[in-house]
This record gives sequence, structure tokens and C-alpha cells, in this order.
Amino acid sequence: MITQVSPAGSMDLLSQLEVEKLKKTATSELYQLYRNCSLAVLNSGSHTDNSKELLDKYQDFDIDVMRRERGIKLELINPPEHAFVDGQIIKGIQEHLFSVLRDIVYLNLHLGATPQACLEDSTYITNRVFAILRNAGALIPGITPNLVVCWGGHSINDIEYQYTREVGNELGLRELNVCTGCGPGAMEGPMKGAAIGHAKQRYTEQRYLGLTEPSIIAAEPPNPIVNELIIMPDIEKRLEAFVRMGHGIIIFPGGPGTAEELLYILGIMMHPDNAEQPLPIVLTGPKESEAYFRSIDQFIGDTLGKEAQKRYQIVIGDPAEAARIMKKAMPVVRQHRKDMEDAYSFNWSLKIEPEFQHPFEPTHENMANLDLHLNQAPQTLAANLRRAFSGIVAGNVKAEGIREIEQNGPFEIHGEPALMKKMDTLLKDFVAQNRMKLPGGSAYVPCYKIVQ
Amino acid sequence: MITQVSPAGSMDLLSQLEVEKLKKTATSELYQLYRNCSLAVLNSGSHTDNSKELLDKYQDFDIDVMRRERGIKLELINPPEHAFVDGQIIKGIQEHLFSVLRDIVYLNLHLGATPQACLEDSTYITNRVFAILRNAGALIPGITPNLVVCWGGHSINDIEYQYTREVGNELGLRELNVCTGCGPGAMEGPMKGAAIGHAKQRYTEQRYLGLTEPSIIAAEPPNPIVNELIIMPDIEKRLEAFVRMGHGIIIFPGGPGTAEELLYILGIMMHPDNAEQPLPIVLTGPKESEAYFRSIDQFIGDTLGKEAQKRYQIVIGDPAEAARIMKKAMPVVRQHRKDMEDAYSFNWSLKIEPEFQHPFEPTHENMANLDLHLNQAPQTLAANLRRAFSGIVAGNVKAEGIREIEQNGPFEIHGEPALMKKMDTLLKDFVAQNRMKLPGGSAYVPCYKIVQ
Amino acid sequence: MITQVSPAGSMDLLSQLEVEKLKKTATSELYQLYRNCSLAVLNSGSHTDNSKELLDKYQDFDIDVMRRERGIKLELINPPEHAFVDGQIIKGIQEHLFSVLRDIVYLNLHLGATPQACLEDSTYITNRVFAILRNAGALIPGITPNLVVCWGGHSINDIEYQYTREVGNELGLRELNVCTGCGPGAMEGPMKGAAIGHAKQRYTEQRYLGLTEPSIIAAEPPNPIVNELIIMPDIEKRLEAFVRMGHGIIIFPGGPGTAEELLYILGIMMHPDNAEQPLPIVLTGPKESEAYFRSIDQFIGDTLGKEAQKRYQIVIGDPAEAARIMKKAMPVVRQHRKDMEDAYSFNWSLKIEPEFQHPFEPTHENMANLDLHLNQAPQTLAANLRRAFSGIVAGNVKAEGIREIEQNGPFEIHGEPALMKKMDTLLKDFVAQNRMKLPGGSAYVPCYKIVQ
Amino acid sequence: MITQVSPAGSMDLLSQLEVEKLKKTATSELYQLYRNCSLAVLNSGSHTDNSKELLDKYQDFDIDVMRRERGIKLELINPPEHAFVDGQIIKGIQEHLFSVLRDIVYLNLHLGATPQACLEDSTYITNRVFAILRNAGALIPGITPNLVVCWGGHSINDIEYQYTREVGNELGLRELNVCTGCGPGAMEGPMKGAAIGHAKQRYTEQRYLGLTEPSIIAAEPPNPIVNELIIMPDIEKRLEAFVRMGHGIIIFPGGPGTAEELLYILGIMMHPDNAEQPLPIVLTGPKESEAYFRSIDQFIGDTLGKEAQKRYQIVIGDPAEAARIMKKAMPVVRQHRKDMEDAYSFNWSLKIEPEFQHPFEPTHENMANLDLHLNQAPQTLAANLRRAFSGIVAGNVKAEGIREIEQNGPFEIHGEPALMKKMDTLLKDFVAQNRMKLPGGSAYVPCYKIVQ
Repeated sequence: MITQVSPAGSMDLLSQLEVEKLKKTATSELYQLYRNCSLAVLNSGSHTDNSKELLDKYQDFDIDVMRRERGIKLELINPPEHAFVDGQIIKGIQEHLFSVLRDIVYLNLHLGATPQACLEDSTYITNRVFAILRNAGALIPGITPNLVVCWGGHSINDIEYQYTREVGNELGLRELNVCTGCGPGAMEGPMKGAAIGHAKQRYTEQRYLGLTEPSIIAAEPPNPIVNELIIMPDIEKRLEAFVRMGHGIIIFPGGPGTAEELLYILGIMMHPDNAEQPLPIVLTGPKESEAYFRSIDQFIGDTLGKEAQKRYQIVIGDPAEAARIMKKAMPVVRQHRKDMEDAYSFNWSLKIEPEFQHPFEPTHENMANLDLHLNQAPQTLAANLRRAFSGIVAGNVKAEGIREIEQNGPFEIHGEPALMKKMDTLLKDFVAQNRMKLPGGSAYVPCYKIVQ
Repeated sequence: MITQVSPAGSMDLLSQLEVEKLKKTATSELYQLYRNCSLAVLNSGSHTDNSKELLDKYQDFDIDVMRRERGIKLELINPPEHAFVDGQIIKGIQEHLFSVLRDIVYLNLHLGATPQACLEDSTYITNRVFAILRNAGALIPGITPNLVVCWGGHSINDIEYQYTREVGNELGLRELNVCTGCGPGAMEGPMKGAAIGHAKQRYTEQRYLGLTEPSIIAAEPPNPIVNELIIMPDIEKRLEAFVRMGHGIIIFPGGPGTAEELLYILGIMMHPDNAEQPLPIVLTGPKESEAYFRSIDQFIGDTLGKEAQKRYQIVIGDPAEAARIMKKAMPVVRQHRKDMEDAYSFNWSLKIEPEFQHPFEPTHENMANLDLHLNQAPQTLAANLRRAFSGIVAGNVKAEGIREIEQNGPFEIHGEPALMKKMDTLLKDFVAQNRMKLPGGSAYVPCYKIVQ
Repeated sequence: MITQVSPAGSMDLLSQLEVEKLKKTATSELYQLYRNCSLAVLNSGSHTDNSKELLDKYQDFDIDVMRRERGIKLELINPPEHAFVDGQIIKGIQEHLFSVLRDIVYLNLHLGATPQACLEDSTYITNRVFAILRNAGALIPGITPNLVVCWGGHSINDIEYQYTREVGNELGLRELNVCTGCGPGAMEGPMKGAAIGHAKQRYTEQRYLGLTEPSIIAAEPPNPIVNELIIMPDIEKRLEAFVRMGHGIIIFPGGPGTAEELLYILGIMMHPDNAEQPLPIVLTGPKESEAYFRSIDQFIGDTLGKEAQKRYQIVIGDPAEAARIMKKAMPVVRQHRKDMEDAYSFNWSLKIEPEFQHPFEPTHENMANLDLHLNQAPQTLAANLRRAFSGIVAGNVKAEGIREIEQNGPFEIHGEPALMKKMDTLLKDFVAQNRMKLPGGSAYVPCYKIVQ
Repeated sequence: MITQVSPAGSMDLLSQLEVEKLKKTATSELYQLYRNCSLAVLNSGSHTDNSKELLDKYQDFDIDVMRRERGIKLELINPPEHAFVDGQIIKGIQEHLFSVLRDIVYLNLHLGATPQACLEDSTYITNRVFAILRNAGALIPGITPNLVVCWGGHSINDIEYQYTREVGNELGLRELNVCTGCGPGAMEGPMKGAAIGHAKQRYTEQRYLGLTEPSIIAAEPPNPIVNELIIMPDIEKRLEAFVRMGHGIIIFPGGPGTAEELLYILGIMMHPDNAEQPLPIVLTGPKESEAYFRSIDQFIGDTLGKEAQKRYQIVIGDPAEAARIMKKAMPVVRQHRKDMEDAYSFNWSLKIEPEFQHPFEPTHENMANLDLHLNQAPQTLAANLRRAFSGIVAGNVKAEGIREIEQNGPFEIHGEPALMKKMDTLLKDFVAQNRMKLPGGSAYVPCYKIVQ
């Protein structure tokens, strides 16, 4: 099956040179990257939890960029069928295809030639995150703070999923917008809920922002509700984009990815320079999930301490309250930005240390070398713990990580025994609660080994 | 609690004379009507099934129209709290308040002085239905046929409700719009589903039309998703509005109201003048509800005959198929209108006999006098059966009907025994399936007695 | 030549009954009225000053309303060619055609059946003016005061015309909107100027309102810049519409029509009830026209007195200043409406006496019977003088008036000699300045005789 | 006077790094460029013909970019007063300020680091022109061909100016858009006319594109009607932008700049590769200017030959005809693009030789070395003649050119005597017709000397 798709949304003109560089050739890495991301968004709604499976299944998929009188067209060869309704591509997915094109072109053809030294400089990295978001049209200057980042698992159960929808509805009723990491579960529920809440309020500035990156997009393809999709170059820039764009953060139940995100934001918020930053953080879920939050809270208290716990609120079984906390914080965030002469759309003044910015490559060696002991500054410990969880996510769902594990066996994680024990407890809870993979699959085989 | 509400949507200017006529005075019937309808839309989301209860509960509610520099304002005294989020009225409900105002003013102050003779003339009635819809802005000339009327019960079970949502999603994915009778259940599900489907398609011409009338609005208040609310003067004009505006009809499981609607449309479609009318009719529900449709189908076959059965299709457990049938029919409907030089937005050429247009007052006398026997033209039998079911709906949920029953006991329905038996079977099925009232109440006490 | 025109703008749906009533039949007065007004707007840009000429020239013009699948269509038989560009009707003119249809239908088919008693009641008349404007969509509630009414001659010279354009440009730069009586000259210049000023300011709420009436529309057809055209039923309701909608008035040089308008507004503003009304009035023109304003000012001073003169300012050769006076007055007007709880879009609190509301029929008898002497309340004198000038306008340019004059010779105007002398002087000035008819025609033959 | 200006239009977010680079410092060339272009657009409407005068007059003008919560703000120190109306900056000028910022940032901070080799490559240059236009949002994919480039003098007389307005009106009535080089005269008239024509047609996709470059912007500041302003880096890229974006070209009377433009386009169109290109070219003016066109036509015939003359049509005194030729050519252009699979918004397939792309620096040496003789391919002769006229324009109105002349006296232009004579005749005609500078100044002192 071959079908042609016209531009929708943000990218519709390419120069001759750009088109040439995207063409399929035997050696083109850029084409492979582009093709795989495109395949992932076409796979929206199909809930595989394993990007390798996806790539294997659609080996005969190809994509071709063509210049035409109205700009450009994409030719899709053997695309997944569920992207279409009665033979017509779903408009939301069509837009995502062109978001992929936009970001791939910008990252690789426009920003491409940056010297390595720059890439390691903290200021430079932040400016680059800004440039990508601006190019994607995601930084809209006129809007006062109203963007709530929702984190949480992609494989939550039905009760949790309905709860995320309810929270979304309450956010929507309060005319707040939603940003998630794309994908199913806690990343889809708040958006669907918010879509209904926004409809009730006739709210037409609705934003359902999905931030993803090439290594995760296949496992967590954006659902078509996402009306702004952005492909960041790596997990660290994606996390930086979340916290610089978001005006509040809600964390739903999830697995190691959610733990990674929580450690990331706590590590940043505990930096002394950020003491005055008014970012509201709420951990919330239905009554049935209370135990989960208690054990996370315990882990945070035991490792990062009470100060870390003060940075968030736990709300159980009260979607309206979770939304209300966000809503009430918005004027405070707004005033703080004004006082700082900082942009509403991008939090320049938030201090993010290089250790949270530099990509962590989840190799066996890097995992084994993590500096995990309790006697270090909490923000540093948070950074190291984050890396550990990041590696576990990679081993679970990312193509590269899965390959690593297939070849070399599980990662080994070393560290101070007291800390290792707490971590082991938490991870075992995750396994017990089915939070490591999509339910319905075979039993979970851990991709890691805690070495105490 | 007193709160002021600014105009939203369709009505924002009143003349001095109009404002005066809407003021609360000891004797003003118009004010009572206006107040009660306003109360009903403020009660959105609260699922009482009994309009009398609602009126009793909010006896201290008042509404006052005031002229102001930006047009008019409404002052609400003691409105139901669930119309508000953090003290702010929900925008959808705010719009509904002004739709009520618009239609009450138009019907009573602009169309008011029509001579009785005209009111009984068939052409005149149709022109009046047209005038009300036009005044409400509901007849949009540029739009090609895409409006699907969804009928069905307001007290369906969870599986049925999810099914109506799924059908709505499939309609939305096909960029079809939805018109229902307002209220919960099968009138809400397709709209919520369509809202998600439309969001996936970035469809911005979305219409969620709610047609109601003063005697039903309290029992079936519009959910806030409804973005075009129209209050027709009586049940017959509401039904005429449905079938002249709709380009296709989907019927979900329901109770006597749904039976009334099915009899109404079959009675019309079986008129010889309408033989060429290409209106698609689909009866659909989840597998679990198959028995329901079989028994309805049986009743139709037994009473109106095979020709009537040819007028609809039954689709079980296939939401996409139900939507696909509608989508495929739209070009046919369009071509027929072109051939007839008839409007897309209003089906002038559909023949509707006066017996389907004249209000049926559900008094004990009228119910007792219904002409119910099998030996009459099927369209006439359909008209008479419709009246019977209309009376039962009134006795179940309408303020006046309930009062009648409280005072004089159940309606007595007489007729040819063979027919009475079939009817009795069907009604007993409805009772058994909990289709007579909202679930969760006390046991159903029938408001009628079949006298064989 | 036969051509079909689709709806544009405000009117696109008619009921069967309405279409029937607009059909051409031997006896239909309504059709004649409708046809003549339609012909007039099609004649836009052609500067005849004589509506009889127009009607004579296009005797074979016909118009037919047809119902179609997308609403209605108009069929034009032998329309004036200059309404078309390369065979396509100019969109602005197309909209005007449907404005005519909208107002003719509303006035004659919806408001038609009003009892005579009501028609003479002052409150009723004002409510009717309101109803017509509301039906035309001309009362937009959200807009704060910004509408400047521009009056002046349709046959001014080039220097004056350029000046009106300059004033329009300055109004446009200040984001003020413009309302005139349609037609060329001082009614076109400010609109074209404002269009340029608005473009420079990227102002997208631009309104170029034209208020006309059936007896004047042929002589002063709306130019296509007019984006809201309203046909009022008679000259008095048109004047009432001007002063209740406008938030400020600019008067350019003109002839007897302009004098009529000035007398009208002064007569109203001098009513004691209107003492606090903050309506700014500016008489303005280029240096070359200074004498004209001096002689008008003299006439006002001599007849209505100093208090009348205080009601306006004269600005010579300073377009920016004229616009600045309007701009500065807008917050004052706004505050006054708020204080009065009166609408921004319609000045209900302005007192207009019945003598300014009742149509004056310019027959020889009525003209001869005017009560013209200096010893009466200034607002009453203003009312009587207005009638005199109104009659002269009719005799000059309106079809009926011209016929009257052709049959019975010039009107005779009687009155107190001192007053008659002042009036004679003013009128002779008008003749000398070529202000009685479009230039380029034959010498002006007065349609009146001052009898001292 | 210090005033702050918020973003309008296209540029509203800058990164920290970008803001830093635009700051005023002793040595910043970029700041000087940015400041001078900003000053030029603030000077809109002031008709100086000499950019040096402007810079001298506003020496104390400064501009400062500041990051703020809603994005950025500009602080203007001592800006020209006529950019403001009652203390508020005119919105059109405000947009232009941010267009300047957008293009300066893009050209210097994003495209900055290109190797010299690339800059000379023809394909690379064309891709760069494309990139600048795309970044400015000027390439809109959905639009079918409708953009008419208007060239002509900035110092034409009143009759010619009115004529350009009339042509603009006729283009607007045909829903064609206008692109000019900014500035007064023939670059303003067609836009003002088109604005009125578009208003009559209710055309809302109106584009008034102004293409300028740093060395010309001060002498020909964009009038505020321009709703898309683009600053190209040099005159050659500006010319390439004109011919790749435009779908037709109208040339009004003008001076040496207009001659340069005509030679440029003829040189391109005569390239054999462009033989099939369907670009319509019309030379048009009022009857009074007929002689001008005859002498230009003569010069073209004498130098480039009959084939060159076939490439354009001359239309005298018929604005509608000029517009009609453009309108009729649009479907042909459209079809050609489709056949070529070329973009509507950018004519990739037009062959432009490097000699038309490389900047010509108008030094005395370069002017003296021009290869001017009749015995060369017409497209090459056209290229060389274009350079000669380009130099004269620089000597007349550009800051650098004027300085050159002040220091070193007039340019000397050498060449084959027969050709020099023709050129001398043409230039003398220009002087005699006051086409070398704005009228009202002192007598024209030629900046060149023809050496035969």
C-alpha cells in the first residue's frame, strides 16, 4: 500500500537541499532516524511496549519526501493501517508526521554543525532546548502561566486511568493546559479528560503538548489528541523542556520512568538557587493507589530527606483538589516570572546543573559505575539515582537498551548497601504492582541486578 | 447566593419592552416558564429523573434580566452549585442560559401573536419550526449533510453507555456531527465520544446539538458539551426539528421515549410521499443489548409490517460499522437534496402529516381514547402508537404528567386485544430491563394500565 | 443577461412562505420595493443624483429569489454591468443585495402586522428602530464606544472630498469606526480614508456602516466599502438610528440634507433631558470651505441661539484634530453609559420627542403648512426647520418628491419674514456653492419657493 | 523620549544568547545595522530621498532589546515622532520593527557561519533566499498563484501616482496581491489601491509584501500598509526574491532603479532555459507617461533586440486591462508549476545565472570596468547594463554610494560609443522628467559621467 500525505500543521516547505538530505540511501543514518520516528507516530494507539517489536513488524515501511506545487508531500509505503479511518489518515497523526519532519530537519540540518565544546556547555544546552521549542512554535509569548506537566506510567490499571481522566477533566474545567510525555496510560488520560473539560468551557486555546525523543517514541507513540508534538534530541533535553515550559507538575502512579522524573525534578528544586521557585508539584492517584505513593514518599524521605518531601503534596482520591492546587499556584508563578523579568513560556531562571543536562548512556559500564551512597548532597544523590532509573527504563523499553540486555545480561547496580536495600524494595514494589511493563505480557524479567 | 452572568453565545441584546415582559411578577406565566427552563440548564450534570423534584428542591431560585452597558446581564439568586467551578459558572452552561433566553423571547415575544387557525395548519407549523431553528442560528447554509441524530435512553447501563461513546468516537473520526435530545445516557455518550474523535481529527466545525422542550428539559438537562441548545415549544415540534435537520438517525437502547421516537420516524418514512427519501436509520448497541433490539424489531414487524423493518438496519457490537453506514449515506442525502432543490440544513420535502405535528396532550381522557387497532394504514397506526408511548413518557418524567398520575391514578390504555398484548409484552420488557426510570431509585410503579 | 448570485453576509435562509411573498406578481408592492432597492445597490459607484433616472434606465431589470440546497440564490435579470468585475459580482455589492433582502423581509414579513396605534407611540418606535438594527446584526454588545457618524454632502468638490478622506484616515489611525448615510462624496471619503488608516493599524474590527432608506438609496447607493448596510424604513428612523448608534458626529460640508441632519441633532441635544448627554459634534472641512461653516454657524446662532452653538465645535483644516476630539470623547461617552446602565451599542437614554420621530411627508400641503417662526422653543423650531430641509431634499433627489414637483411645481415655504430671509440666504448660498445637486449637470432649478 | 514597544507580528522570542549579541557596544557592527534598519522603518511616511540625511538627523536614536515575561520588548530612545499617533506607535510600524529584528537575527545569528565557498555557489544562494523568505513566513504553501510584483519609481508625479492606485484597485478587485520594494510612489500607490479593492471584495487574504534591503531601506522606508516586510541581505537577493515569489510583474514609470529592475528580469527571461516560463510582464502608466515607455521600449529594442520586447506588453491608460492581463495569466502560471512539480510560492525552476546573483559593489573601479558593448549575448548585456544602473541608484540614494561620490566625484561609465549614446539619451530623459530624485529638491547633480 502506497499513500500520499499532504502537510498539516507546522512544516510544509523544504528547500531542494533539505529534501535531498532526507532521501533514502544505503548509508543515510538521518533517513533511518526520520523513518523510525515517522513509523512510531503512525503506530499511535497500538499499545506495544517494545520499540524493537514495532520496528521488526514494519520492516517494509518506507517514507519519501517529495517537493510539490503546494509545498511538499510525503509518500508512505506500507504504513500501519490503524493510522487511517476508511482509508484517510487521521488528521492528528498527519500533523504528527510533519512535526517529526520539522524537528528532524531542524535538529539535524539547521542546528547540525555545532562544535562539541558548545554541546557540553550548560548555557548552550539551555539555549538549544529553547531554540528547538521555539522552532516548534511551542513557546507562545502571549499566554499567562497555565501549563501543567503530567507524569506517570504508561501501563497503569483501569482505576488509575479513569482517575487521570478525572484529573484531566478538572484541569480542563479550570482552563489549564496539559503537557505529557506522549503515549498511553497516565500520558493519555489527562489529555482526554482535559479535552472534555475544555469543551465544557468552550476553551479554544487548548494545548495537549507531547514531548518525546527518538529512543522512546516507538514505545510510547503520541495519541492523536496531542496537538503539539515535539521530538527532543535526548531524554535529558526532554526533561529540561518539561520543567522549563511547565508551570506546575502532577505525578500519577507509574514505574521506573516516573521515579526518574520525580528524582529529576526534586534534584533540581533542591538546588539552593531554586529555593524561591514557586513550581507546584502534586503526587496524586485514586484511593486504591495510596500505598504506592506512601512507598515512594518513604523512599524520598529516607534518601533525600524531609526538605525534599516539602517540595510536593500528596493528594489521594480528589481530582478537583489536585487541579485546584495547580490553578491557585498560577498567579504565584506569574508574579515570580514578572519579578524576575523572566518569560512565561520558558523558565530561564531555573538553575539546572550540568549533571542533569548531560545525556546518560545506559551501558553496562556506566550503570555499574554509578556513585550511589547516602553521604552526598541531596541534589547530587538525586542526580545519581535518576541515572539508575533512567537505565532501567532503557533496559525495559528502549530499542538500544533492550539490545544491550539481550547481549550482555542485566545491568548490575552497585552502591552503599543501606541505599541499595531501599532501592531494591522500591523496585520490587514496582514489579509486584505490574509497573514495569504493559500488563497482559509475560512475567517481567528484570533488566537489572541490585548488587548490595 | 447571588451571582451575575454575562452573555455568552447567541443572545445578548434585549429591548426595553422585552426586558419588562420577562420581569418576575405575581402573575407572569412567562417568567415561570423562563425561570424553570433556566433552572433546568443550571442543573446540568445532576441526574434526577423527575422534574418535579428539581423544582421542589430549588424553590428559592430566581433569575432576573438586567440591561447593562455591554448588553444585558442575568442575575441568578440561589442557583445550583454544581453549575460552577471554583465560583465561576461553566461556560457551556452559561451559553445554555442564554439559549433559553433567546428561545423563550423568540417564541413568546416575537412569534407570539399568531392566530389559532395558523397554528393548526401543517405548512404553517413547518415554517414555524424552521423559523425557530433559523433564529437559533442552527440552520447553517454552507454545510453539506453531516448531522447524525442520536436517540436512545437516558438511563442506560454502563456497557451501553460506553458503547454510545464508542459510536460517538467513530462518528467524530468521520467528521460527522451529533444531534440528540440533551440529557444523560445515550444523549451524552455520543457527544463525549464525538468530542474525542473530532479532537483527533482537529475538526473545528464540531456541532453537538441538543433539542429539548420545556416539559422535558428539567428531567433531561443538557450536558455542557452541547454547544447548540434549542428549546422547541413542544414535543411534536422537537421531533419535527430532529427529522428535518438530521441527515441520518442512530437509535440506541432506551425506554418508552425511544420507542416513541422510532414510531414517529417510521410513521413518517412509510408515508408514500417519502418513499424516495434517503434517510439512513441504524439501531445499534453492544452485544449485551442484542435481545432488546430483537424484541423491538419483533414488535415493529408484528404491528407495522415488513416494509417498516426495511427502513432500518440493526448493527450489533460494531461502532465503526454504525458510523460507516451514516458516512456512506451522506453523499446520497446530498444528491437527493440537490435533485429536489431542497436545503441541506432543513428537509422541506419530507412529508409530515398533521397527526404527527399536532401536540398530544397526555390526559387520562386522551390516553383512554387512543385508536389502537391493527387494521389501519401502518403510518396511522404508528402515529397512534407514538401517542401512547408519548403519554407514558409524560407520566414517568414530566412535571404535568406526574401530577396527573398523582391525582387520577395510572392512564388506562384500551385497544384491540392482539395489539394490546404485544404492547404489554414490550412494556414489561422495558420494566424488566430497568428502562423506565433512572437506575438507583425505588422499584418502578407503572403510570399506565393496559386494558385488553 | 441573467446571472445567479449566492448569499454573502447576513441573509441566507428563507422559509417557503417568505420566498412566496417576495415573488414578482402583477400587484405586488413588496416586490417593487424589493426590486428597486436591489437595483439601487447594484448601481453602486454610478453617480446619478436622481433616482427616477436610475429606475427609468433599468426598466428591464428583475430579481428572483430561489430556494436552493445551500440556502437561497438570487437570479438577476439585466443587472447594471458596473456591479461586476470580469463577469463576477463584486463581493461588497453581493453582500448589500442580501442586506436589502434581510431588511425587506424583516420589516415587511416579520414586523409587518403592527397596529397603527403602536406605530405612533414614541417608545414603540424606538423599540422598532432597535429591533431592525439588532436583526441586522449592527448592535454588537462587546464593543466599547468607537462609532463616529459622518454627515455631509454627496456632491462636494475635490478638495473637500480629499479632506474627508484625510479625516477618515485619522479616524482609522485612532481605531474609530465610521457610519454614514451611504453614497458618494462625504459619505464615501471618510470610509475610504478609514480603510487605509485601519490597514495601517492592522485593525480588524473595522466597521463601515451605511444607513439608508428606500427613498434615498437609489440616489445615494452604498459604495462597496460599506461592510454593514442597513435599510431603515423611513428618513426619521434612519436619523434615529444614527444618533442612537453613534458615539460622536462629524459634519462635513453639504447641502440641504446636511442642514437637515444638523438641525435634527441640535433639536434633540437641546432638549432639557439631554443636557448631560456627552455626544461630541464637530463641523469640519478644509480651509477653502471655511465660509460655508461660518454661514451655517451664523444661521444656527440667529435661529436657535448661542446654546445651540455651544453644542458643536468647528475645526478648519485640521483632520487630526477632528479625529482627536472624537477619540478623547469616547471614554466620556463610555462612562456616561455605564453610569446610566445604558447600552454602548444603543443610546436608550437619549430623549427624542415624537416630532422628530414621525415621518414627514413632503407634499405641497405639508410644506406650505410648516410652522416657521422664531418665537418658539429652540428644539421645536429645529424640528420645523428640519422638516423644511427634508422636503427640499425630497424635491431634489427622491423619486416621489421629484414627481410631486414635476406635477405641481415648486413647494411654497411660508413663515415669519425674518426667519424666511435667513433661510433664503442660506439656500442661495447652497445654490451658489453647487451644493444642491451633483456637479456636472445642468443649472439647478429650485424645487421650492420661499414666500416671505 | 523613551518608549517601550511590545512584539507584533512575527518575532517575539529571543534566547539569552541572541539578546546579548544585539546589545549596543562600542564595536558592534550588528547593533549598528540593526539600529539603522529600525530607524528606517520608524521613519515611514517621511519622504526623504537620502538615507544619509536620515541617519544624520536622528543621531541620538537608540534601540534596546529586553527580555520580558511575555517574551521580549524593544526600548526606543528618541524615535521619530511621526511613527506615533497620539503617543501610540502605529501598529503597522510596530510590526515592521519586529520584522527587522526577525531578519537581522536570522541572517546574522542563524545563517551566520556559512563558508565563503558556499556563498558563491548558485544553488546555495537560491537556497538561502528561500530560507530567508521561509523564515519570514512569506512562503505560504496553500495559496495558488496570485502575487503581482509592482516596480516603478518612488518619485513619480501625481498623475502617475493616481494611476498606480487605480491599477492597485483593479488588482484588488481581482483578488490579486501586491509585492513591491517598499517606499513611496509606485511602491505605495498599488498597495493603497489594492487595499480599497480588497475591501470592496471583502478579501481577507490580502498581502502587501515589501522586500527591501539594508542599503535602500532608509531611502525608501516601508509604508505602514505593508503587512509583510522582509529585509533581504543585498540588492541581488532582493531581486531574486521578487522574481521567484512573484507570479507576474507590473512596471510603472520610474528612474534608474526601475530600469535596473527591467534589465534584470529581461536578462533572466531571455536565458534559453526560461523560454517556457509563463511570467507575464506589463509596462503601464497613464496617457501622460506614454513617451516614457516609448523611450524605454526603444532602448530595449536597440540594445537587447526584438526578442526582449516580446517578453513584455505595454498598456497605456487602462488600469483594468493591466490587471486583467495578470489575472488571466495566473491559471497558466499555476499549470506550469504543476507540470514542473514546482512550488507555487517559490519558482525553483527559473534559471538565474550567477552574474545576476553576485552582489555588485558600486565602487568607482567597478563602475569604470563594466563590460558595455553591443556584441554580446543579450542576457549578458542585460546583466552588465543592470550593474550600471544599479551603481547610479547607489550614487543617488544609498548612504555608501553617496559617500563614495562625495569623496571621489561622479562614477565614470565607459563603453562602446553606440551603446553609450543610447544610454546617455535615456539617462538625460530621466533627468528631464525629474525621475532621478524626489521632486521639490534642488536641481539634480548627476552621480555619473558617460564617457563615450
